[in-house]
Amino acid sequence: MDLKKVLEENINALSSIGSDPAGGMTRLLYSDSWLEGQKYVQKQLEDEGLNTHYDEVGNLFGRVEGSKHPEETIMTGSHIDTVVNGGTLDGQFGVISSYLAVRYLLETYGKPLRSLEVISMAEEEGSRFPTAFWGSKNFVQVAERGDVEEIEDSTGAKFVDEMHRQGFDFRDVNKPLRDDIRSFVEIHIEQGSVLEKENLQIGVVNSIAGQRRYTVTLKGEANHAGTTPMNYRKDAVYGFSKISSKMIDRANEIGNPLVATFGKVEPVPNTVNVVPGEVTFTLDCRHTDSEALKAFATEFEEEVNNVATELGLEADIDLWMDEAPTPMDETVVSKIKDAAEKEEVSYKVMHSGAGHDSQVIAPFYPTAMLFVPSVNGVSHSPAEYTELEDLTVGVQVLASALYELAYKD
Amino acid sequence: MDLKKVLEENINALSSIGSDPAGGMTRLLYSDSWLEGQKYVQKQLEDEGLNTHYDEVGNLFGRVEGSKHPEETIMTGSHIDTVVNGGTLDGQFGVISSYLAVRYLLETYGKPLRSLEVISMAEEEGSRFPTAFWGSKNFVQVAERGDVEEIEDSTGAKFVDEMHRQGFDFRDVNKPLRDDIRSFVEIHIEQGSVLEKENLQIGVVNSIAGQRRYTVTLKGEANHAGTTPMNYRKDAVYGFSKISSKMIDRANEIGNPLVATFGKVEPVPNTVNVVPGEVTFTLDCRHTDSEALKAFATEFEEEVNNVATELGLEADIDLWMDEAPTPMDETVVSKIKDAAEKEEVSYKVMHSGAGHDSQVIAPFYPTAMLFVPSVNGVSHSPAEYTELEDLTVGVQVLASALYELAYKD
Repeated sequence: MDLKKVLEENINALSSIGSDPAGGMTRLLYSDSWLEGQKYVQKQLEDEGLNTHYDEVGNLFGRVEGSKHPEETIMTGSHIDTVVNGGTLDGQFGVISSYLAVRYLLETYGKPLRSLEVISMAEEEGSRFPTAFWGSKNFVQVAERGDVEEIEDSTGAKFVDEMHRQGFDFRDVNKPLRDDIRSFVEIHIEQGSVLEKENLQIGVVNSIAGQRRYTVTLKGEANHAGTTPMNYRKDAVYGFSKISSKMIDRANEIGNPLVATFGKVEPVPNTVNVVPGEVTFTLDCRHTDSEALKAFATEFEEEVNNVATELGLEADIDLWMDEAPTPMDETVVSKIKDAAEKEEVSYKVMHSGAGHDSQVIAPFYPTAMLFVPSVNGVSHSPAEYTELEDLTVGVQVLASALYELAYKD
Repeated sequence: MDLKKVLEENINALSSIGSDPAGGMTRLLYSDSWLEGQKYVQKQLEDEGLNTHYDEVGNLFGRVEGSKHPEETIMTGSHIDTVVNGGTLDGQFGVISSYLAVRYLLETYGKPLRSLEVISMAEEEGSRFPTAFWGSKNFVQVAERGDVEEIEDSTGAKFVDEMHRQGFDFRDVNKPLRDDIRSFVEIHIEQGSVLEKENLQIGVVNSIAGQRRYTVTLKGEANHAGTTPMNYRKDAVYGFSKISSKMIDRANEIGNPLVATFGKVEPVPNTVNVVPGEVTFTLDCRHTDSEALKAFATEFEEEVNNVATELGLEADIDLWMDEAPTPMDETVVSKIKDAAEKEEVSYKVMHSGAGHDSQVIAPFYPTAMLFVPSVNGVSHSPAEYTELEDLTVGVQVLASALYELAYKD
């Protein structure tokens, strides 16, 4: 099979489902285009001879039994949903790669020793309803009915109604967790520019960063910018500037894999000639090491309190997201490294700064990921792009890794 | 006369004209309430025996001829217009104080040796049309017809139409500048909290600060907050934080009368999980010394360029306001100091960080101002307030200064 050609055809075909007149793709959980997308994937899985089924919530599975160890399953896949006006790679490239890698292996080597299974997960992005990882969280049985029972989308459509409309329902919580999964491998675009900048073809992901997100409000006193001497001021933006410049200096010192972003800054009243009496800002900080992340976050909180005391400001610190780092499985990581070496492609072992289904699955089954480069690091945008050559290399390395896992005794 | 009682009555009466159902007072140039306000003042001037007239644009004058030096005029006054939802003191307190001080002098001492003249200026705030100091600029003949010929207010009403509607017109530019004015004295609320914090009754203003206002845009690169290592970032908000914290540190070091305010900060896209690729912010800096203001502004511009170079950002620096400081006249300042001492009130010599009609008049006629305290430094708000006792002291000191200027040979 001409992998590059087939890959391009499949990406084009699946991208036509949910193509958004406003740009890019919009294929939201339990929408009609979402169901059509899953059915397209199902057709591809069946055409290559896999047995397919959906679980209760809409995760799609395609399976070929192993000839020697059918009770041991090597699983690969990603998610089918997109953000609003997303690109054509985030999620679906992983799904397409998974079934094309399996197709390539079946055509080239026949039946595997262990069972091979593709999963096209229902939802990861959290782009329609205020919940995320609905697909993987149901697969590993950590999704809770109560998380979604009352939620609705921006048009007022209820999650539960939309789920029922497409023929799905809550998971049967009495079913046991599957114990046959020996490995899970996910391929994804990097969504960053490390591979591109370092001119590498593959990223072998050994960890997914944990993250903390804060919203901080500093309150001082709004005053006339002309009539209030410096020593009578309680300037909230000055507080923000001191805190953020200091903490980014610190993040630069500490360096990779720590990242720290002050992405949102909203002074009040936000007017040229008024000393800003209030500012609300966010910090997003990530690290692959739980203790290092905590240490930086603690240092940040102390800095906020110190600056507030120094400048006579009131500080309110809200830590509203605290996700632990997720290490990938060493054995699966080394299989992907071996595969990259066997395929003679350049690679580096790296962490993921973005979240993925793999972080939900990793605590339950040995899991690792591989990345292909993202041009300019762009993602969640119609401008999301990876050279077809790089995408093809990704599928080849994925197939090679699955071969190591499913065909070797 | 019971000055305190009369002052309170006059403030209440004039405040009822233009009282805004949405709060405070709104008496905009050439509105009906504005004309009604001027007519109220005219009535008071006439009742105390002054000869009144309007100039072409609507400045109101009330004059009593000096018994010995009628060709030498001591003038006092302020402006009649307000901001939208303004307080009851900014502007009109100065107008009321002026005619009450003159009334007190006439009742107590009879005719002055020099002529005494009250001016109720048409406009200072720039709150209806995009022009300011229309009253004082016409009085000293620096207003230009072209500045207002095409402008309109937010409802689309044209400046010229509204001026004509109330019976006024452009100034006759062939008339010579008046050469009889020997002194101009303006009383105003401080609009800051220096007098209140230092528990003083009167501020004797020896200078009005000059100001520079900048809008700066820094452009870097918007990137994913998780997948972009610190060393690959071009974080515009980091640039802002470094510049603003450094420059406020510098302003604190340099101290009074320098003030520096970063009042407006607008990152793009302003989202928690995106490295901000762009930020637009303002600097408002003021000083009473032209060279010192320029030195600070130059230091700021250099800092912007240095930080931009260091972080790989593009910087666009727009200096859109550059007003020179205005020193007050030493002789008039010392007359006001003498008056404060004679009245046995506490005072300090200080600068004004806010702009006033006096800065327009000072280059033409010997000018000085006096301030009364503002509770919490609040102004341009319905919460603008000064204790009646403090207001009354202000009128007494103003009257005493005018006595020195107009009744002494």
